[in-house]
Amino acid sequence: MAGEARISAMDKDYAGLIGRLRQRLGPGGILTDPVDTDPYCEDWRRLYHGRTPAVLRPASTAEVADAVRLCAATGAAIVPQGGNTSMVGGAAVSEDGAQIILSLSRMHRVRGIDPVDMTMEIEAGVTLRAAQLAAEEADCLLPLSISSEGSAQIGGVLATNAGGNNTLRYGNARDLVLGLEVVLPDGEVWNGLRRLHKDNTGYCLRQLFVGSEGTLGIITAAVLKLFPRPREVAVALCAVASPEAALRLLQSCQQHDPAAIQAFEYMSGAGMALVERFIPDAKPPLAAPAAHYVLLELATPRQGADLRGGLEELLGAAMEQGTVTDAVIAESGAQRAAIWKLREEHSEAQKRAGASVKNDIAVPVSRVPELIRRAAAVCERLVPGIRCVPFGHLGDGNIHFNLVQPEGADGDAFLARDHQLMDVVNEVVRDLDGSFSAEHGIGRLKPYMMPEWRGGAELELMRRIKAALDPAGLFNPGKLLPQ
Amino acid sequence: MAGEARISAMDKDYAGLIGRLRQRLGPGGILTDPVDTDPYCEDWRRLYHGRTPAVLRPASTAEVADAVRLCAATGAAIVPQGGNTSMVGGAAVSEDGAQIILSLSRMHRVRGIDPVDMTMEIEAGVTLRAAQLAAEEADCLLPLSISSEGSAQIGGVLATNAGGNNTLRYGNARDLVLGLEVVLPDGEVWNGLRRLHKDNTGYCLRQLFVGSEGTLGIITAAVLKLFPRPREVAVALCAVASPEAALRLLQSCQQHDPAAIQAFEYMSGAGMALVERFIPDAKPPLAAPAAHYVLLELATPRQGADLRGGLEELLGAAMEQGTVTDAVIAESGAQRAAIWKLREEHSEAQKRAGASVKNDIAVPVSRVPELIRRAAAVCERLVPGIRCVPFGHLGDGNIHFNLVQPEGADGDAFLARDHQLMDVVNEVVRDLDGSFSAEHGIGRLKPYMMPEWRGGAELELMRRIKAALDPAGLFNPGKLLPQ
Repeated sequence: MAGEARISAMDKDYAGLIGRLRQRLGPGGILTDPVDTDPYCEDWRRLYHGRTPAVLRPASTAEVADAVRLCAATGAAIVPQGGNTSMVGGAAVSEDGAQIILSLSRMHRVRGIDPVDMTMEIEAGVTLRAAQLAAEEADCLLPLSISSEGSAQIGGVLATNAGGNNTLRYGNARDLVLGLEVVLPDGEVWNGLRRLHKDNTGYCLRQLFVGSEGTLGIITAAVLKLFPRPREVAVALCAVASPEAALRLLQSCQQHDPAAIQAFEYMSGAGMALVERFIPDAKPPLAAPAAHYVLLELATPRQGADLRGGLEELLGAAMEQGTVTDAVIAESGAQRAAIWKLREEHSEAQKRAGASVKNDIAVPVSRVPELIRRAAAVCERLVPGIRCVPFGHLGDGNIHFNLVQPEGADGDAFLARDHQLMDVVNEVVRDLDGSFSAEHGIGRLKPYMMPEWRGGAELELMRRIKAALDPAGLFNPGKLLPQ
Repeated sequence: MAGEARISAMDKDYAGLIGRLRQRLGPGGILTDPVDTDPYCEDWRRLYHGRTPAVLRPASTAEVADAVRLCAATGAAIVPQGGNTSMVGGAAVSEDGAQIILSLSRMHRVRGIDPVDMTMEIEAGVTLRAAQLAAEEADCLLPLSISSEGSAQIGGVLATNAGGNNTLRYGNARDLVLGLEVVLPDGEVWNGLRRLHKDNTGYCLRQLFVGSEGTLGIITAAVLKLFPRPREVAVALCAVASPEAALRLLQSCQQHDPAAIQAFEYMSGAGMALVERFIPDAKPPLAAPAAHYVLLELATPRQGADLRGGLEELLGAAMEQGTVTDAVIAESGAQRAAIWKLREEHSEAQKRAGASVKNDIAVPVSRVPELIRRAAAVCERLVPGIRCVPFGHLGDGNIHFNLVQPEGADGDAFLARDHQLMDVVNEVVRDLDGSFSAEHGIGRLKPYMMPEWRGGAELELMRRIKAALDPAGLFNPGKLLPQ
């Protein structure tokens, strides 16, 4: 089977196509040696191991367009790839060796920053970290922040509508996009690089491409909104009595100064215990372990804001009401980093604790406490001894409801039940009007869930749009939409 | 010609269709007497005077769906209509009497408000004013605010992606939508009434329908984001030396406390003089007339915020630097209203001053001063004595560049040159990377501009989407897309 696929991919047509691509892109613009292409063929989570006849590395929008045109003429499918950090195999290539990877990494120019307009024009291959730093140099803030920001590239971040820690305040990636440049499946270029805050001139195409996971077009550049940089930051770690108390604390913050809430992250006692056990130098700076924690970050560019004073008052009142049982406010940048480390090392700690199943789910904010309780109950019923580690963006209603194998149990046997576990969690999520994919998207992992969750008129609309824009189905096949 | 059209509209097919619609919607759900239907056939600006065989007034989503299905079976086109307040004939019916109007006014239920989630589920026919009041009763803020809010309905507000005064802070209508319910051209209902802040499960359909001006689907209900209500408001009227000074003042505000800027409106001395002359009890509370004005509103739900103190300091510094030459801060609600009246009566004052041509344009914020200077210069060259009255949302880069006939000149002769005037203004706008329609949309007035401004790949994408969702072209024909 694998041998057959290799032949089909390397048949005369592909050899001719690769020759034409090499001619157009130059020797630095195409990789065909498996030693070079293999790293592009495995996704970050190592869920998929594909093969490809070529990785294209165009250096300009015109090169992307020509490469797409050449592939389209041969009917060769293209998998666009940025930093390849998808959690759902969004940039994974198929096993049959018939799909060509188009990497955007050589398009890594910050084309310009306008600090008066507070906008940045940037190419798809710039990493999110590099984009943040470029904004910072212009004394602005690009507020998008995700764990993989050192590798994730702007094109992928937009194609998947990345979320992250600051969504509560600044929105998802979608909300930061003013303009886009996109290469379409027929090789035409749509130049929608506008930097206007108001522009009602036809269908909002940019929002169609954002979150379409490379199935409708290849994003080559974007205009992003920037914001004033915070002058003051205050970070607190709070022990709270229950998920309900965590929600009450969020409401107090919203009553107090909603515009200052930069992040509001929930962590469970179980997750914190794993972090303490498996991550060196990670220990909550509180008197005693708690069953539930909130990491709260306030930030503002406001001059003369006494964030710390306000936060002390707010937490004092919350302790009097019993909402918060213990709390510490960071005194320095080092202490802030130490508190954030407790949150950021959650995934790593779970990895070291054994096999785990991940659920990236969202519910209306008011229903997060119910979600946490009910999902834990059904999982514990299904797998006694399972360690439920819910954590994440409570302020957005987005919880990573991760499940770690029981202590000492067989990891593979646990993983064999992953669909069963996802299903019982999703049943609760559905009952609470939630979503089975909050910020990671659909990719190759979850298209099978689409008919049940987004079936009927919704999936039919998506299929019609896909057929209208990519009639031959050449862009990122097998992703997002079920076959 | 008109006689022929009347016949074609009233032929046997339509008579049968109207019978079936009457049966389904009940006698209260359909109007056919011209006495009843005529008011629906004229747009707010009185640019278009159409005829219709029937105005449908369904009272539920199921009735909308059935009405659409019945019309589709006969191939009858539908013009969806909310408050009929479009500035570009977006809900205008054709003159040939062949289009049926579907009014959403009987779907006027606020289905629910959740003050914890800060969301509101609301039907399309609720007026924006009623929606604001419902939010207020739940101690929340629905921040969208436009001049026509007393008549404009939520469905139309979303279908046209309305903007308004608070866009700078809260975004356009688009940015407030979490979920939608839409009846599609084949009568299918898409229930996308989710109230999630993160939900990456396929193409972002809601943003496709928002701003599509009823050409892709009929919005029947929506879930909107709400915000905490401001506890404190401060309004100032400032005289500034130039448009550049107005921009510098905006930057000072952003440096000072960007999250508090609720509105930042520019007005010219010429516009203010017309308001003073034609509107009773309207006079800027400043020592002397100025060449340029800024209306600045700060607002915050922050507890203990001393907005006024901060504003005094900010304006004091701006006066020292010469950015602001005179300023007054409102001392009471009545004074705030009096200052806002100067801005809100701009359109009315222009109407009383004679014939006028309106340009609803946007440019990058940094280019507004250049826009104002250059557009005024080309208009004055074309029509000596013309009165240029630029005003509006400087903070969004959105200026209503209105043109009033020369004093004592012939109004009709002036209006005969409207396209010429729009063209020279638009030439400047295009040179500044701007847009020919910032917040009013395309409607029936501006499709002819689309090929020049949005032609090529962009218009082709829009046409493909239209064909995919409404292959028979039955929803709001003649709007948004050029024929």
